Amino acid sequence: MPLAFTPSTLVLAVEIAATAAFALSGLMAGARKRLDAVGLVVVAGLAAFGGGTLRDVLLDRRPFFWVEHANWLWALLVLCVGAMLFLRKRHLALTERAMQWPDALGLGLFTATGTQLALSLGQPALVAVLMGVISAVCGGVLRDIVCNDIPSAFHDHRPYAVCAFVGGWAVVGAHALAWPESAALLVGAGLTSGLRALALARDFRLPVWR
Amino acid sequence: MPLAFTPSTLVLAVEIAATAAFALSGLMAGARKRLDAVGLVVVAGLAAFGGGTLRDVLLDRRPFFWVEHANWLWALLVLCVGAMLFLRKRHLALTERAMQWPDALGLGLFTATGTQLALSLGQPALVAVLMGVISAVCGGVLRDIVCNDIPSAFHDHRPYAVCAFVGGWAVVGAHALAWPESAALLVGAGLTSGLRALALARDFRLPVWR
Amino acid sequence: MPLAFTPSTLVLAVEIAATAAFALSGLMAGARKRLDAVGLVVVAGLAAFGGGTLRDVLLDRRPFFWVEHANWLWALLVLCVGAMLFLRKRHLALTERAMQWPDALGLGLFTATGTQLALSLGQPALVAVLMGVISAVCGGVLRDIVCNDIPSAFHDHRPYAVCAFVGGWAVVGAHALAWPESAALLVGAGLTSGLRALALARDFRLPVWR
Repeated sequence: MPLAFTPSTLVLAVEIAATAAFALSGLMAGARKRLDAVGLVVVAGLAAFGGGTLRDVLLDRRPFFWVEHANWLWALLVLCVGAMLFLRKRHLALTERAMQWPDALGLGLFTATGTQLALSLGQPALVAVLMGVISAVCGGVLRDIVCNDIPSAFHDHRPYAVCAFVGGWAVVGAHALAWPESAALLVGAGLTSGLRALALARDFRLPVWR
Repeated sequence: MPLAFTPSTLVLAVEIAATAAFALSGLMAGARKRLDAVGLVVVAGLAAFGGGTLRDVLLDRRPFFWVEHANWLWALLVLCVGAMLFLRKRHLALTERAMQWPDALGLGLFTATGTQLALSLGQPALVAVLMGVISAVCGGVLRDIVCNDIPSAFHDHRPYAVCAFVGGWAVVGAHALAWPESAALLVGAGLTSGLRALALARDFRLPVWR
Repeated sequence: MPLAFTPSTLVLAVEIAATAAFALSGLMAGARKRLDAVGLVVVAGLAAFGGGTLRDVLLDRRPFFWVEHANWLWALLVLCVGAMLFLRKRHLALTERAMQWPDALGLGLFTATGTQLALSLGQPALVAVLMGVISAVCGGVLRDIVCNDIPSAFHDHRPYAVCAFVGGWAVVGAHALAWPESAALLVGAGLTSGLRALALARDFRLPVWR
């Protein structure tokens, strides 16, 4: 790998930060439910890798990301052990707030790459967008199901999957315009993360069904 | 498509009515749990397409029904938006009661087609019946798991999966007698739906384990 | 099959006892939640076959064990009906205690065979161990999710998945040393079951995160 700062270094940095944010969201959800150490690691792993794995099962794609690059599993273990050693209850609220921003970046990145991947496998547009949304959102859904909660992505009335849905269509649009892949990813990820950041900053709510 | 009324038109009409009934069951379960708009669409989609998708994952069959015919996904979105715009709380009980009958038709149709499909892939009889039951029942199971309820199919002491199980064996029997496929489907679907309708009309209960 | 007592007879006996213990754990969890007869059979089946099935879905392996040997499904049905006819509430606590030991044997057997299987498919070491743990543990996890509980494997602070994790690495080690397959299985299963039995006998607890 070159020493100079390249786009792929940036993508890798975003990917690491976002995966860590997803894993920490799992750790904190598990801690709130007083899971044991095994449960914490599993829930962190589901939050971090569950969405992409579900997407790959639906697309019948093997090997999984974490099988091809098993180092991510080791990194997850190290992260969990480190968090259990060094994080204390008084850090949780702060960590949760700090994690919102890498989480928003991850929402964008995983939506864009998931949509792009499904398009490259010849899936129809709506299905590709759905696969992008699943990649980005279903890790948190599985985390909440195992923690015996209604998934917060379906329940907290804040735009999360909706941002991913819009961003996925941006990738589809860029693809239809024959833009280069990197531009499509950038637009999709940027739009998704931007919408999410805006929703967080302005405290947007989803419309309510009476 | 010919303008005349043909059996396949009838099957399509039953399929549309049944899928809508399944989706509405998801919408209503989600509304009861106060899910947001995203959650309502997801739970409606799981209730409508989750059973067939799980069957296809288990049988390692691609593309999924809703990938090959992505129009069904658009129809689901339209149905959800329409229901959110026009259904009000006072309609819910009535809708629920009205949905019992297309739901019973769907139970029969999806059981029969699921069993037939598994038989045509060379699965053993009991496995084929199981695949039929999964197609018809597991959408509702996934709906209830996401809504953080014990699945009502496992808990309400009313014959539902049992009707599908019996009807699945009818398909297997017709297949063993080398009946034409349409006759097997008709017998299986009719027996399943008939049993379910009878169970609803007479308020049958499953035996209780002391 | 020869009449003499052979290692494979022993393995089969352990497999039957362990699968029955897993299924009974499902029956008892379902009974505690007052599931109906359908729910009891489903939860027993998930507890018995869910872990191996999830492993096979992740490894994209077909046919499933219970498709190739559909007799196991019939045996499950017979076991469930028998238990519903003959087990009474006053037997439950006793059954639960008695089941701990075949359950510990099953934990070892399914971990070792799952790890071995993944290694033989060329999976990396950590992934193979994970597949062994999933085979042995995720049946109970699915059982608890359907019963709307936090999975006890993640919550009860007792070593269960941890024993499987250690035993899985023993299989990997034996494989790396080019030991014969039966020796690798024996060491992995023995170590897992032994650790679990020790943890039960000494009432070990997992460390708590403050």
